[in-house]
Amino acid sequence: MTAAKLISPPTIHIGLLGYAFMGKSHSNGIRQINYMLADPPARAELTALCGRDETALQAAARQFGARQTYTDWRDMLASGEIQLLDNGGPNDIHAAPCIAAAQAGIHLLCEKPLARSAAEALPMLEAARSAGVKHMTAYNYRFVPAVRQIRLLIESGALGRLYHFRAIYLQDWLLPHAGTPRLWRMDAERAGSGALGDLAAHAIDLARYLVGEIGAVAAQTRTFIPERPLPDGSATAPVTVDDAVVSTLEFENGALGTVEATRFALGRKNGLRFEINGERGSVAFDLERLNEFQYLSLADDAAHQGFRTVLATEPIHPWLADWWPPGHIIGWEHTFTHEIAHLLRCIVADEPVAPIGADFADGYRCAAICDAIQESATSGKRVHVHYED
Amino acid sequence: MTAAKLISPPTIHIGLLGYAFMGKSHSNGIRQINYMLADPPARAELTALCGRDETALQAAARQFGARQTYTDWRDMLASGEIQLLDNGGPNDIHAAPCIAAAQAGIHLLCEKPLARSAAEALPMLEAARSAGVKHMTAYNYRFVPAVRQIRLLIESGALGRLYHFRAIYLQDWLLPHAGTPRLWRMDAERAGSGALGDLAAHAIDLARYLVGEIGAVAAQTRTFIPERPLPDGSATAPVTVDDAVVSTLEFENGALGTVEATRFALGRKNGLRFEINGERGSVAFDLERLNEFQYLSLADDAAHQGFRTVLATEPIHPWLADWWPPGHIIGWEHTFTHEIAHLLRCIVADEPVAPIGADFADGYRCAAICDAIQESATSGKRVHVHYED
Amino acid sequence: MTAAKLISPPTIHIGLLGYAFMGKSHSNGIRQINYMLADPPARAELTALCGRDETALQAAARQFGARQTYTDWRDMLASGEIQLLDNGGPNDIHAAPCIAAAQAGIHLLCEKPLARSAAEALPMLEAARSAGVKHMTAYNYRFVPAVRQIRLLIESGALGRLYHFRAIYLQDWLLPHAGTPRLWRMDAERAGSGALGDLAAHAIDLARYLVGEIGAVAAQTRTFIPERPLPDGSATAPVTVDDAVVSTLEFENGALGTVEATRFALGRKNGLRFEINGERGSVAFDLERLNEFQYLSLADDAAHQGFRTVLATEPIHPWLADWWPPGHIIGWEHTFTHEIAHLLRCIVADEPVAPIGADFADGYRCAAICDAIQESATSGKRVHVHYED
Amino acid sequence: MTAAKLISPPTIHIGLLGYAFMGKSHSNGIRQINYMLADPPARAELTALCGRDETALQAAARQFGARQTYTDWRDMLASGEIQLLDNGGPNDIHAAPCIAAAQAGIHLLCEKPLARSAAEALPMLEAARSAGVKHMTAYNYRFVPAVRQIRLLIESGALGRLYHFRAIYLQDWLLPHAGTPRLWRMDAERAGSGALGDLAAHAIDLARYLVGEIGAVAAQTRTFIPERPLPDGSATAPVTVDDAVVSTLEFENGALGTVEATRFALGRKNGLRFEINGERGSVAFDLERLNEFQYLSLADDAAHQGFRTVLATEPIHPWLADWWPPGHIIGWEHTFTHEIAHLLRCIVADEPVAPIGADFADGYRCAAICDAIQESATSGKRVHVHYED
Repeated sequence: MTAAKLISPPTIHIGLLGYAFMGKSHSNGIRQINYMLADPPARAELTALCGRDETALQAAARQFGARQTYTDWRDMLASGEIQLLDNGGPNDIHAAPCIAAAQAGIHLLCEKPLARSAAEALPMLEAARSAGVKHMTAYNYRFVPAVRQIRLLIESGALGRLYHFRAIYLQDWLLPHAGTPRLWRMDAERAGSGALGDLAAHAIDLARYLVGEIGAVAAQTRTFIPERPLPDGSATAPVTVDDAVVSTLEFENGALGTVEATRFALGRKNGLRFEINGERGSVAFDLERLNEFQYLSLADDAAHQGFRTVLATEPIHPWLADWWPPGHIIGWEHTFTHEIAHLLRCIVADEPVAPIGADFADGYRCAAICDAIQESATSGKRVHVHYED
Repeated sequence: MTAAKLISPPTIHIGLLGYAFMGKSHSNGIRQINYMLADPPARAELTALCGRDETALQAAARQFGARQTYTDWRDMLASGEIQLLDNGGPNDIHAAPCIAAAQAGIHLLCEKPLARSAAEALPMLEAARSAGVKHMTAYNYRFVPAVRQIRLLIESGALGRLYHFRAIYLQDWLLPHAGTPRLWRMDAERAGSGALGDLAAHAIDLARYLVGEIGAVAAQTRTFIPERPLPDGSATAPVTVDDAVVSTLEFENGALGTVEATRFALGRKNGLRFEINGERGSVAFDLERLNEFQYLSLADDAAHQGFRTVLATEPIHPWLADWWPPGHIIGWEHTFTHEIAHLLRCIVADEPVAPIGADFADGYRCAAICDAIQESATSGKRVHVHYED
Repeated sequence: MTAAKLISPPTIHIGLLGYAFMGKSHSNGIRQINYMLADPPARAELTALCGRDETALQAAARQFGARQTYTDWRDMLASGEIQLLDNGGPNDIHAAPCIAAAQAGIHLLCEKPLARSAAEALPMLEAARSAGVKHMTAYNYRFVPAVRQIRLLIESGALGRLYHFRAIYLQDWLLPHAGTPRLWRMDAERAGSGALGDLAAHAIDLARYLVGEIGAVAAQTRTFIPERPLPDGSATAPVTVDDAVVSTLEFENGALGTVEATRFALGRKNGLRFEINGERGSVAFDLERLNEFQYLSLADDAAHQGFRTVLATEPIHPWLADWWPPGHIIGWEHTFTHEIAHLLRCIVADEPVAPIGADFADGYRCAAICDAIQESATSGKRVHVHYED
Repeated sequence: MTAAKLISPPTIHIGLLGYAFMGKSHSNGIRQINYMLADPPARAELTALCGRDETALQAAARQFGARQTYTDWRDMLASGEIQLLDNGGPNDIHAAPCIAAAQAGIHLLCEKPLARSAAEALPMLEAARSAGVKHMTAYNYRFVPAVRQIRLLIESGALGRLYHFRAIYLQDWLLPHAGTPRLWRMDAERAGSGALGDLAAHAIDLARYLVGEIGAVAAQTRTFIPERPLPDGSATAPVTVDDAVVSTLEFENGALGTVEATRFALGRKNGLRFEINGERGSVAFDLERLNEFQYLSLADDAAHQGFRTVLATEPIHPWLADWWPPGHIIGWEHTFTHEIAHLLRCIVADEPVAPIGADFADGYRCAAICDAIQESATSGKRVHVHYED
């Protein structure tokens, strides 16, 4: 350990909005940074937690170790004590807090999808840019070591010209037997869309990250169960989002693709898979086996060519030097550890979040593509995506 | 062995058109029937072989064991010696010989795609129906035991309502490094289409066989290399078919699907894969491991639920009782053995070819869907498939 | 959340011996308990850290958040501030601190192998029993949710009589290209044995946990590279332990088995795999995909029977309710979270550590089997294991 | 096609002993040669078929296309019409017909194991050598293209020094639920041994073919069900062979190995799997996916290193040029096609059968190892194999 490392890194005070699934994921990521990283860019401190239900909020604050709690995000932002807003709330409270935080000079981390539509996302991007704060959309699968390694492979030219991208993101929690009530995620007003913004958006972000910009789409959506009981059992309510979506993708570089997302694929739990075929190599990935990726190289002797199953757990793999010996796999949760550490590094070193992470421009563009997919599903026409950023 | 089985089955005399890849596949299937089946429906005899190149034709006739050879299919049909035309020629010589044979009361087996377009296929279907002959389109993957078992599973109701179908058919022989010349398969005049009719058509036939009728599509195609040298090196010629195609699929029963086919997926050699997700079960299949299929049942205890890898090599699996002990896998070639034996059984017992096999109506409908995909790719609009059969 | 749960759980003060790989793993497990478990049995506090190198010790104490540090474990035990000794030091300092701690009424968690030989392990077991403290050997793979689920399956009778167990534990860090120096793990004086006690011992513990007691072994070992440079490069030193070991296993219930462990299996990083075949079911597991297991049930319809790939990430799977939604995999590190939480629960509720965890009797018996394997490798004779506990 | 190839190859007349499973497999292989190989070394003719049951013999002769039938192998050998004896009978009629045929100058193909013991095999080898006839033991898995490719890899030095071999051969047809009667395979008098000679022998032959000579073994066997009903239900009879066997293996080159074979592994149908770990590469194979093999090369960039799944169906792979396009898999049956074609080539060109095929020396040595395994299982001691050839 060198002397330089004994100089304590700066502390970044974080205010977290949301204490449910994403609240737990993010707060866990925050605390891992200080513990697991040999050389953290900053000391991450969960200073404040914000949520609407006071009882649940207090319980979560105790569990997560947050010093302060707020039931109104405006108060949290006004406290002057946080330098980074981590917005893990539902999609309909992404825009206002992020814009207000940016205007207060607070850096931004916002869950995906960035907003319910591109129109809602654009002012978020503009506010962040105007304020000069760092901004990140939490497309955390960029921070799977295997996915980052794939990006490095592609950047190195090992795949050559890219011809094909295909991705599926399959879950099964809305099938009839599961008895899932109509949550906020099935309400277009709050969520914007269903499997599209929740699942397909991840695949689309990876498509842009790994292959390039998307020019046009042709899509169809389905809502298999149009009405569900509310969580409190008081009544039923319509499902106003898609249960499933399929789309063709045309990339600006000529590659052809497909994306599918559904919550109706029995037996697929968190089944994000993609494959990319290039002129000199192919790669494939499966989130349920996130420590692995597949790689085929045309440079290999033809008699011994095949998809290699690479276990991305070596110290030379991205972010892995801080973890365990080779073959000792890490969990899904550490996508957040890597993601938040990257953002802290960008804040401390004043470096851009993209392309390693998705920034608000990426969040906006992904929203624009989701809008185009929805438009195509409605109109029955191929839609060329328009970007206004 | 019962006494009844000692009564020799009838002999069906077959005239085979084509001696290349499909000629070899079909003639091999024909001869396997007599040898491997404990109780063949008929004795299959390759009576005549027809092709244009006299030298190659004679060599093939010796290898395949055909007694007669013809360089004009009209002569073969007129010989009065064949009861079944097996048309394994290029797509542009499917229609005329089939129609003429039907009119001569000769049963029909025709390679897929049935024709270069639905318009070309329809009179073939009508001729076969008018003549009352048996007619089969050689969608041989219906005759993979695992695929047949999947169909039986679905028929049994084990999957319940079907929500999703996704299929890919990936090959890599047109990538730049392969140096493939412009074969007839890349000439729209002769082939009709490229990856669409050659590969996607297989997946579409399976979609119809396993899930149901297709109502609408939205597609895009690509020709990555627009011009290639002719096989004799004399000149280059344009590639007038698709190298790759992607499409969304809407089934009449409400299921949502995708299909993709390409000859540009490096490392995928004969990669036909599909997955079907239903209300109570899911299934998956990969042609490169054709002795296996995947099946997940909601009826399994939740703590032990998962995709089962079923090795479909038991005597209780379709057609397997005639082969080897469990776990001794069979090859791709025997899809033809099963297919042709089924057709012979239908001829001898006067039973319908469908739904176990694809008949000309299936061939026509598949062509109509391919046409719709091409139309959608061109027009940029979702296309509702119209069937005129 | 019920009122009862608001009553704070007791705090257990832990003194950790060792700050290297196992120190990091254990301290991480300790802190996860408080954070991730909805209902932790106790508040786990890493009160003290003990190690010999003062500088490294201070750095580790800061990283792990230990309040006190000691360079002599006797001082740590004498402080009166710890209730649980977590012994993560090298094998040659397992016995003395554990025996002293037991005599001081301090509960015990000791890394595996429990000692360098059964003779060394037996007094540890006796001391723990005499003192009436809880004692656990850190065979952490019992705490993989999938492995626990397999045990539950076997306990339920789903596999019927067991016929076969086969296990391999393959790593590759001693191959020539890796240039690994002669660490303490290759010195028989300090480690007792090599791949045998480090790797095979894990498989043997699982064999006992899942199948039953082992009666006899016939083994062979190899040291492929007999001399290596010391870590400081000052000299070379002999490798006095096995690089690899193979053994047959005879279980007292009649089952037949094999175990192999090596550090010379190129490409296998942490490849612990086992399969068990019973009268009515078979199971298989691979540590590099630790969120999954394979299960085949004879109760399944024969036409659809196959090994199910079960993703053990459902809330109904052991320990998983505290983690993430289905399909969001957890990492290797949480075997320690589950293990230490189990020990805390046993301490608080005064319940036995075994059979869910391995206690010192399990540690002793595993050592006796390893001794028998070494004896068989030396003598060339089948060795019947003798247990004196 | 060159003019030279138009010269008809010579015809080799084959007399086949046995019409059951092996009779069907071999006769199928014989007829494939003439049909599928572009350039067969000889025309293979199944001239005579020999068996004891006249009715079954006649039916088989019709199915296999044999011109002559014999109920006594002495008559078949004396006919003067056969040049190659293909001995596919039970193990207790391997020796006498082979020795007699050799003495009559007839070439030899004998099913494995070559004999019930090394003592019985040695005179067979000596007779073949004295007569100067070609001799082959039908260890057909040397003729899986993927296995041959693995051998070529090892010969090329790509794996460097070999450290480990592990093989399992798992079947499940003797489990209680299967109700299998006491066949000849379970009678030591006729079969010699059980899973050992039937299954483990295949793995041992591959060990010798791929890794090298075996020096010592330490083994155990089990007979889980000691008595079974006879096939005709008339009585029960003791099972006098092993149901399962496990053994350690020491190779003369220092490599360490294991082999296991059983007929009691539920769900494993024809599960022959092996893995070899060398200094610079590792390979793995699974007979149930016989068109594939796994290969890991240390020469690959460390960040992208992994086991490649190679689909051994390219024209450059051994024997594949005669089959189908890439990715169109072949079946288990064609191991016999390749095997018999190789033997014909050796006969015609007067070349040695080994090492591409196993000759009688290989059959003898494999029997010697099986004897040593049995001796070790009985004596409880490590046994050094003695070869007298």
